[in-house]
Amino acid sequence: PLVAILAGDGIGPEVTAEARRVLEALDLGIDFEEGLVGGAGYRGAGHPLPPATLDLAKRADGVLFGAVGDPACDALERAMRPEQAILGLRKELGLFANLRPATLFEGLEDAAALRPDVARDIDMVILRELTGDVYFGEKGLRTTGEGLRQGYDVMAYDEAEVRRIAIVGFEMAMRRKKRLHSVDKANVLETSQLWRDVVNEVATGYPEVALIHMYADNAAMQLVRHPGQFDVMVTGNMFGDILSDLASMCVGSIGMLPSAALREWAGACGLYEPIHGSAPDIAGQGKANPCAAILSAAMLLRHSLDMPEPADRIETAVAAAIAGGARTPDLGGTLSTSAMGDAVLAGLA
Amino acid sequence: PLVAILAGDGIGPEVTAEARRVLEALDLGIDFEEGLVGGAGYRGAGHPLPPATLDLAKRADGVLFGAVGDPACDALERAMRPEQAILGLRKELGLFANLRPATLFEGLEDAAALRPDVARDIDMVILRELTGDVYFGEKGLRTTGEGLRQGYDVMAYDEAEVRRIAIVGFEMAMRRKKRLHSVDKANVLETSQLWRDVVNEVATGYPEVALIHMYADNAAMQLVRHPGQFDVMVTGNMFGDILSDLASMCVGSIGMLPSAALREWAGACGLYEPIHGSAPDIAGQGKANPCAAILSAAMLLRHSLDMPEPADRIETAVAAAIAGGARTPDLGGTLSTSAMGDAVLAGLA
Ligand SMILES: CC(C)[C@H](C(=O)O)[C@@H](O)C(=O)O
Ligand SMILES: CC(C)[C@H](C(=O)O)[C@@H](O)C(=O)O
Repeated sequence: PLVAILAGDGIGPEVTAEARRVLEALDLGIDFEEGLVGGAGYRGAGHPLPPATLDLAKRADGVLFGAVGDPACDALERAMRPEQAILGLRKELGLFANLRPATLFEGLEDAAALRPDVARDIDMVILRELTGDVYFGEKGLRTTGEGLRQGYDVMAYDEAEVRRIAIVGFEMAMRRKKRLHSVDKANVLETSQLWRDVVNEVATGYPEVALIHMYADNAAMQLVRHPGQFDVMVTGNMFGDILSDLASMCVGSIGMLPSAALREWAGACGLYEPIHGSAPDIAGQGKANPCAAILSAAMLLRHSLDMPEPADRIETAVAAAIAGGARTPDLGGTLSTSAMGDAVLAGLA
Repeated sequence: PLVAILAGDGIGPEVTAEARRVLEALDLGIDFEEGLVGGAGYRGAGHPLPPATLDLAKRADGVLFGAVGDPACDALERAMRPEQAILGLRKELGLFANLRPATLFEGLEDAAALRPDVARDIDMVILRELTGDVYFGEKGLRTTGEGLRQGYDVMAYDEAEVRRIAIVGFEMAMRRKKRLHSVDKANVLETSQLWRDVVNEVATGYPEVALIHMYADNAAMQLVRHPGQFDVMVTGNMFGDILSDLASMCVGSIGMLPSAALREWAGACGLYEPIHGSAPDIAGQGKANPCAAILSAAMLLRHSLDMPEPADRIETAVAAAIAGGARTPDLGGTLSTSAMGDAVLAGLA
């Protein structure tokens, strides 16, 4: 199988290098091919998502993505900015289902922002729709009747888009605790009202799953007040962006959490990336925590390469390294990026 | 002066009754007039915002609002639902500036969801734009080319809307710590890009204020990671809805926090309401905490009636009652709503 490595900007190259090392150590017969993306794509090939990179991603069986974002590109027009690369990849590859687990690792209770007794309860997955919503509707700058500049972005979902992500949500709920929170803002948005109606329609096929609708503002509150109530949370692209970052910060381990962007639950190409960003302030210093990237590689094995066994081994090795006291600076320790990679590799043996 | 009391649904009547009691005890020569709103408006006058209520609000010098939201109305079409009343009042009265303070009261450190040492740092105001954004753009249900139902809502801001809220933000920052965070999602939204451009234009008039732009997803994370970094945060209607609820939950005192919706900083009619909702599960039981409503009355005195001195007295009395150990059930105590009102009244003497 072919895995595309799109390391990107900032700490992206450092952390994906460790993830690749782990995959290579497992000797799974994977071929790797690297592509330029983000600010690196702009500088190296004149575009944040160069055609050769998009082509590589389409040919690959899975994409291991680092991070994009580069302050040096801030002045560029929007279409040339690094962030457009990840939006373009999601859309071009049809990766509508974004899985973002938020769990507290044993030994990291003290890193959580919430009280340890509250944070300990967190074991959830946020399922974020990734190719629709106000992210991809018509948008632009226009002039109002009074001659004023006005920015606009159309938020929209059609029933097919909602149905397919809802089905993933219910399927995940069936494999976990049979509890699904659907988050919207149906008291204000027509988009959310359709979302809610379609989720209710899909629910009739899953009578065993307890479905709870929640408004986005309340969901943000509940994530800090009583996060243990959540198991699977399904939501749109915009609310999911905010709530998934929030959930991961509640457990405090933003350097530990992976994500997957899928178009099918298994067997299709997906894109796997740490939820942390490019962190330009610490780039190139060997301070970044590679665990999120390594755990993203595990998700790649499970969802795109149908290799659940080595995926489990990687996850066990990361947990063991943390439980054994391995700590990068974000976790209050002094290990370098590669030393943390070594600690995980040691656990694979 | 005339104060309109729109008590609304659930615990709204109980908590506004205490706020009115406090205002009456101060003997400020205020006339009170009650109006039906929300589910109560629908049942009593056939509409969540009956014409007589809107007329009263327009005649009044200030509106003391309880809460709207009633599960019995869930099946009604959107236009008849209780929540539409508050959206209608904001729009009809032109209340574009929503002030939502988040502070930790002395003695309530243990109620905070965050670690006490982190929560103790929180002393901020979220300034939320309240009459624009995806809340008030064109919206509806349409059929796509493929014959699918599609919900849509247009997000938009014009430069005048952004400018006036930005000015309020900078003015508040000048009166506080001269630090302003502007929250948007300019890496994805054209609306946010215009927001950012206009905020930067306004900033040139306030060279003393440190302006920091932050993405909404990052802002949610930072609110739990390191809330002490914020002083004034200005943002749009949608992000403000989520982030202000989040900030108030971080300090854990959702029953303690007031809000103001203004069209002018002082001297004009504004609407004042607790940030908590109608809490139908505890309605009519005398369990609700009236402090948020009482503190909203203090904001009304300050911003709409130009009575800063009695406003200060109310705020001091609430803080004293809490410091003295007065606790409703939401704060882990056993005081009834009216007993908590008594405790505040005692501090006024
Ligand atoms: C970089 C940005 C466009 C992106 C998003 O908003 O989706 C990021 O925040 C994320 O969550 O992956
Ligand atoms: C009730 C609802 C329409 C309202 C809003 O979204 O603005 C509420 O959540 C609020 O924050 O006042």
